[in-house]
Amino acid sequence: MATINETMHTDHQPSEVPLTPLSMLDWAVTVYPDHPAIIHGDRVTSYAQYAARCRRLASALQARGIAPGQTVATVLPNIPPMLEAHFGVPMAGCVLNTINTRLDARTIGFIIDHGEADALLTDTEFAPMVREALEHCQRSPLVIDVDDPEGPGGERLGSIEYEALVAEGDPGFRWQWPESEWDSISLNYTSGTTGNPKGALYHHRGAHQGAYSNIIACEMGRHPVYLWTLPMFHCNGWRFPWTLPAVAGTSVCLRRVEPAAIFDAIGRHKVSHFCGAPLVLNMLSSAPEAKTARFEQTITAYTGGAAPPAAVIGALEAMGIHVIHLYGLTETYGPSHYCAWKTAWDTLPLEEQARRAARQGVRYLSIEESIVADADTLEPVPMDGETMGEIMVRGNSVMTGYLKNPTATAEAFRGGWYHTGDLAVWHPDGYLEIRDRAKDVIISGGENISTIEVEDALYNHPAVLECAVVAAPSERWGETPCAVIALRPDVGAPSAKDIVAFCRERLAGFKIPRHVLFDDLPKTSTGKIQKFVLRERVQELRDEQMVR
Amino acid sequence: MATINETMHTDHQPSEVPLTPLSMLDWAVTVYPDHPAIIHGDRVTSYAQYAARCRRLASALQARGIAPGQTVATVLPNIPPMLEAHFGVPMAGCVLNTINTRLDARTIGFIIDHGEADALLTDTEFAPMVREALEHCQRSPLVIDVDDPEGPGGERLGSIEYEALVAEGDPGFRWQWPESEWDSISLNYTSGTTGNPKGALYHHRGAHQGAYSNIIACEMGRHPVYLWTLPMFHCNGWRFPWTLPAVAGTSVCLRRVEPAAIFDAIGRHKVSHFCGAPLVLNMLSSAPEAKTARFEQTITAYTGGAAPPAAVIGALEAMGIHVIHLYGLTETYGPSHYCAWKTAWDTLPLEEQARRAARQGVRYLSIEESIVADADTLEPVPMDGETMGEIMVRGNSVMTGYLKNPTATAEAFRGGWYHTGDLAVWHPDGYLEIRDRAKDVIISGGENISTIEVEDALYNHPAVLECAVVAAPSERWGETPCAVIALRPDVGAPSAKDIVAFCRERLAGFKIPRHVLFDDLPKTSTGKIQKFVLRERVQELRDEQMVR
Repeated sequence: MATINETMHTDHQPSEVPLTPLSMLDWAVTVYPDHPAIIHGDRVTSYAQYAARCRRLASALQARGIAPGQTVATVLPNIPPMLEAHFGVPMAGCVLNTINTRLDARTIGFIIDHGEADALLTDTEFAPMVREALEHCQRSPLVIDVDDPEGPGGERLGSIEYEALVAEGDPGFRWQWPESEWDSISLNYTSGTTGNPKGALYHHRGAHQGAYSNIIACEMGRHPVYLWTLPMFHCNGWRFPWTLPAVAGTSVCLRRVEPAAIFDAIGRHKVSHFCGAPLVLNMLSSAPEAKTARFEQTITAYTGGAAPPAAVIGALEAMGIHVIHLYGLTETYGPSHYCAWKTAWDTLPLEEQARRAARQGVRYLSIEESIVADADTLEPVPMDGETMGEIMVRGNSVMTGYLKNPTATAEAFRGGWYHTGDLAVWHPDGYLEIRDRAKDVIISGGENISTIEVEDALYNHPAVLECAVVAAPSERWGETPCAVIALRPDVGAPSAKDIVAFCRERLAGFKIPRHVLFDDLPKTSTGKIQKFVLRERVQELRDEQMVR
Repeated sequence: MATINETMHTDHQPSEVPLTPLSMLDWAVTVYPDHPAIIHGDRVTSYAQYAARCRRLASALQARGIAPGQTVATVLPNIPPMLEAHFGVPMAGCVLNTINTRLDARTIGFIIDHGEADALLTDTEFAPMVREALEHCQRSPLVIDVDDPEGPGGERLGSIEYEALVAEGDPGFRWQWPESEWDSISLNYTSGTTGNPKGALYHHRGAHQGAYSNIIACEMGRHPVYLWTLPMFHCNGWRFPWTLPAVAGTSVCLRRVEPAAIFDAIGRHKVSHFCGAPLVLNMLSSAPEAKTARFEQTITAYTGGAAPPAAVIGALEAMGIHVIHLYGLTETYGPSHYCAWKTAWDTLPLEEQARRAARQGVRYLSIEESIVADADTLEPVPMDGETMGEIMVRGNSVMTGYLKNPTATAEAFRGGWYHTGDLAVWHPDGYLEIRDRAKDVIISGGENISTIEVEDALYNHPAVLECAVVAAPSERWGETPCAVIALRPDVGAPSAKDIVAFCRERLAGFKIPRHVLFDDLPKTSTGKIQKFVLRERVQELRDEQMVR
């Protein structure tokens, strides 16, 4: 006899409506039309105005010949047109490609060509670089200049300014639901440390689920106030442009990430949430304002990458800013894991709180499964806080794949799991903690050394501003850790021997750096340390140069 | 040239994982294993224990021969086994059919047969009725008696008690992801006022999306405490069994809905949210405890059906309980609309607040589209607060269809919209307000009369405890409104003439009841007034009996 599921399965599910974050803006404009959606300088845009502008943008793009399925790229800071593009572009059925404004012209040109952009929204501040990028590339997208009143001005490269384009559009434009929820909503290029960037495609379904999971992870009630310290060109601002309408939140825009402007915005607009790189938190904790700033509202800051030191967390907590650590990749629409706070931690000493909170934690709800496992056998490692494995995930907020790169896509998804390339241990409480990028791990005398663990130890030294640990060649050990350290200008400079002695108190013998170089650290345009450059730099080191 | 979407569409989406609320319990048990999931009497069950018991239940059902796709029915009050069934049954790949414990034996027997139950979890309190139901029906499901320590005891009908069954199971049982997210997770019979009930099937996807949308609508942060005043057999407890793990909430069970027990639980367990019929709120507002109870925490109560009068809302607000009005149907997994509160209403007079809050409001986010439209042309009515239309929805938390009833399913979804059968007006602010069930509307002298509007007017009379307005035949008018009123025992009894005079001040002439009867109101087992019984009762009325 047929089961219920067999009797009820049909090709057409009457309740099927493709999942898309576009429906969230429609909701917000119905329920909270007068609530501020965007604040930029002195300008406040209500949800009714926001939605109307997005519809105008969609309709104007279509009228200018940009067809469904085509790509609209942006080179924009965190300003209202960037938020509007997150809805207006998919409302036109198009794919949004937000390009990192810190990239070089050659790479921007590559992305415009590879992503097949047919239109480009570009802020006049970046005109010189974008002009060069357009000279580099084969395509000739429709160029729309954004001349932000809060911006520095600059040359216009295209035939129309953004406000004029928006004015051409129809505020009553009825956007089309995506045909399939697996249709692409956006295209995000990885900031690979080597080679050309790869284009990760996000689908409507993943954007929708990822937006929901933000609400839960960030415990967002009605009307959060979100400050844009995280570039929206990073993984679509970790999905927050799509999240905020679902809770009728307010976006506070910010052209530049500067402590004075951030403190001012937090106080003036009663900011409740912001995200940013560890650098942003460092900057805030060491700014002169940090000594006196005390905010009344509850503020939560989300940060990825290296966990902030306890001192930074302490300084922020004193101001009323609670820090949550998270982890993710371009391929997972930004954050896939976060260090969910436990009430029991409230009463722990600050150092112990910082230690627990520094872990990458647990999956977002839009990542259905997360394991730390052997990269080849896919066998999960024991939850012992010791055994390293690769972080692998399955879930709805994982990319569709890399655009025009089936080989890299198949490699990334081998065995049915998305392989992050990050090595972690799994703690007994189910929280994971990253030990290294798979390709960064050092194998010395047969032992795996987590460069992150060594770097964490080094960061405890008061004179260390930034550091990176990479493998130096060693006749004796195969590889051996070499520390490259940028020193704080205002603290007495330690010697290489001092650093080694400092590490000896904190690390197992085989993990102690055998070489210590004091130097600046090479970085990508997105601020990632380029370890491959350092690895080349240390190739000449020999065992006889080791610190003794 | 192919668009990005065309190049990336494949049969297999590597990021596709079927949406199911089961993954939420897995999340909770990883992140908050020690947090209380269920409180029942003095017994507290942690998330780790809860998940282990659900897995045991799933594995024990499978071991007893209950196969994926088969139906497991329940006749249970709001006790831990009912929560466990919401996860354990679908973890076994089965469909959960929670039967209303207030139904008569014949109807329960009908549902067991029609829903094809292969197992039945039944509380010993209901043994006499369930024994009779099993005698009525053709099927012989595996009967599992639940002998709740907080219950009154009673006869065991089956071969095994629930705790013994759970003990048979494997706490490490690995549940299978549903093959398709459109697979059925549960089966809920409508409490139709006439004829046999129809079985609405819910799919995993809708349960998942509906669970998320509860979090947003109810503004649930981490660790809400939810009191079970709403029967879980109603639309799977409006999805809350599936919602709570996603926010690591605590369920406070309640065998019986009594004011003393409710006040005690709210105070003792710091309840933050509860749901219930208007009757529950009435009961609380008029209980002796209401005079002194003042709660510290923020409490929100959600109620469907008739909006509570301002006096009830006022009494609850004084205790610290904020009331949100909502609307939904069995076919929409419970609530599909709620009266989203606006900050601007905070400063309005209580009467005005009550008037706005009494509307059915706006869609949940898991209902992607909601219109008030002409039932035949599907043309939306103007948002004028006057023109009546039928409420129609499209969205992911709408049922798959009626089990084994393709005709009724096709009729319910005609034109691609789910037709609720409820008539409403659409206010200029986009909030809808129900005027009547389509089949209850009275057509008098060619004018449509909303019986709800007349009932609302009557409820303002201090002596009216309950009332219903139905069509009486009229030679002159075709139909004419007849009010049937149950009076409060403690207030002086008005005459029919008094009632008519009272209505004259509040209603247009053609809406004033021409007949007024003082009588008890017939109700279904779920507390719905049976208007069809009243309609039969008033068939003998004649124009010459009208109140003058």
